[in-house]
Amino acid sequence: MDELKGGAPAVCGCRQKATPRSTALQADVQKRLNRAIGQLNGVKAMIDDNRYCGDVLTQLAAAESAVRRVSEMLLAEHMRTCVVEEIRAGNDAVVDEAMELVRRFSK
Amino acid sequence: MDELKGGAPAVCGCRQKATPRSTALQADVQKRLNRAIGQLNGVKAMIDDNRYCGDVLTQLAAAESAVRRVSEMLLAEHMRTCVVEEIRAGNDAVVDEAMELVRRFSK
Amino acid sequence: MDELKGGAPAVCGCRQKATPRSTALQADVQKRLNRAIGQLNGVKAMIDDNRYCGDVLTQLAAAESAVRRVSEMLLAEHMRTCVVEEIRAGNDAVVDEAMELVRRFSK
Amino acid sequence: MDELKGGAPAVCGCRQKATPRSTALQADVQKRLNRAIGQLNGVKAMIDDNRYCGDVLTQLAAAESAVRRVSEMLLAEHMRTCVVEEIRAGNDAVVDEAMELVRRFSK
Repeated sequence: MDELKGGAPAVCGCRQKATPRSTALQADVQKRLNRAIGQLNGVKAMIDDNRYCGDVLTQLAAAESAVRRVSEMLLAEHMRTCVVEEIRAGNDAVVDEAMELVRRFSK
Repeated sequence: MDELKGGAPAVCGCRQKATPRSTALQADVQKRLNRAIGQLNGVKAMIDDNRYCGDVLTQLAAAESAVRRVSEMLLAEHMRTCVVEEIRAGNDAVVDEAMELVRRFSK
Repeated sequence: MDELKGGAPAVCGCRQKATPRSTALQADVQKRLNRAIGQLNGVKAMIDDNRYCGDVLTQLAAAESAVRRVSEMLLAEHMRTCVVEEIRAGNDAVVDEAMELVRRFSK
Repeated sequence: MDELKGGAPAVCGCRQKATPRSTALQADVQKRLNRAIGQLNGVKAMIDDNRYCGDVLTQLAAAESAVRRVSEMLLAEHMRTCVVEEIRAGNDAVVDEAMELVRRFSK
């Protein structure tokens, strides 16, 4: 089952990642996600409190930047593990899937 | 107190918004923020579950896009209310502050 | 003739800019556009020469960044002049047009 | 000489691309670059003519979008050829270089 399936890529053979992420990477990502969630909860409170637009937008930009950084970390890890493994296994279709992820990331 | 203060813009006279956001806009924004937070919690569970990179990145892109849309809505509201009011009041410095927000938004 | 016309905004009353850009701004913008055009001609030569992808992409990124900077300068000038003038003249529709330009800029 | 060299990546062994781009891709890219250059020359004329900001920004956005599309095409081609070849040759450093290009592309 190495083929790509439309809308639900299963390149690594299933929906799990073949090479698990390191404990360190997982911990770092979870910490960043917690921070982003905390910032968004902060924005919710600021909206309730009728806070000034500039301040709310600054907080939103911080949250967006945190989410983006997580995407970048996971994309880099994806390239270093899944993409390399699939290419070595002869499954070059993984490259088009990766470009699709890059395109979405760069929006 | 109409001046801009470095790092903590107080163009509207204080850190509250002079013209409160409409109840409808507040409700819409809070709903979108809740959805983004839900998506990020979903990502946390996917990381714990060693889910495939492509699926995690898709969920992260959805969250980022939700946050971005909120920023855009609040920036538009800011321009329609605070910026217009300050310009009419002769405080053109609000334009440079708005451009700074635009620059941050477009990163 | 103060209305917005679909696809061909004429907020300033006609397709000319009401307050001309300063000579200094014009010269700066033209210099930057010349540089971007030079960089794109450089990319064309690199393609003819089968140059390495990374080098071509670096040159393209420089050109894109130059074009983006010009957009940012003109958008800031637009806000400081046309937008302020129209708001003072009571034509608040200029704000929605400006947000549309911001949205396109931030793509 | 397969190593990456700071600032001047030579992953494919030299500054030429190991697998030449197809004639069709080259022709498509050159056509798009010509169009972008034409649009930038159009912007220069619009600046000389004091044209309305919104119209100038629309033209700039078109040029930027054309340049971006060329970057995307070349990045995809890079991944499909150089990156795959280098990974097969055991040179995994190409992945980090590719991520650096992705990061620059997504700015």
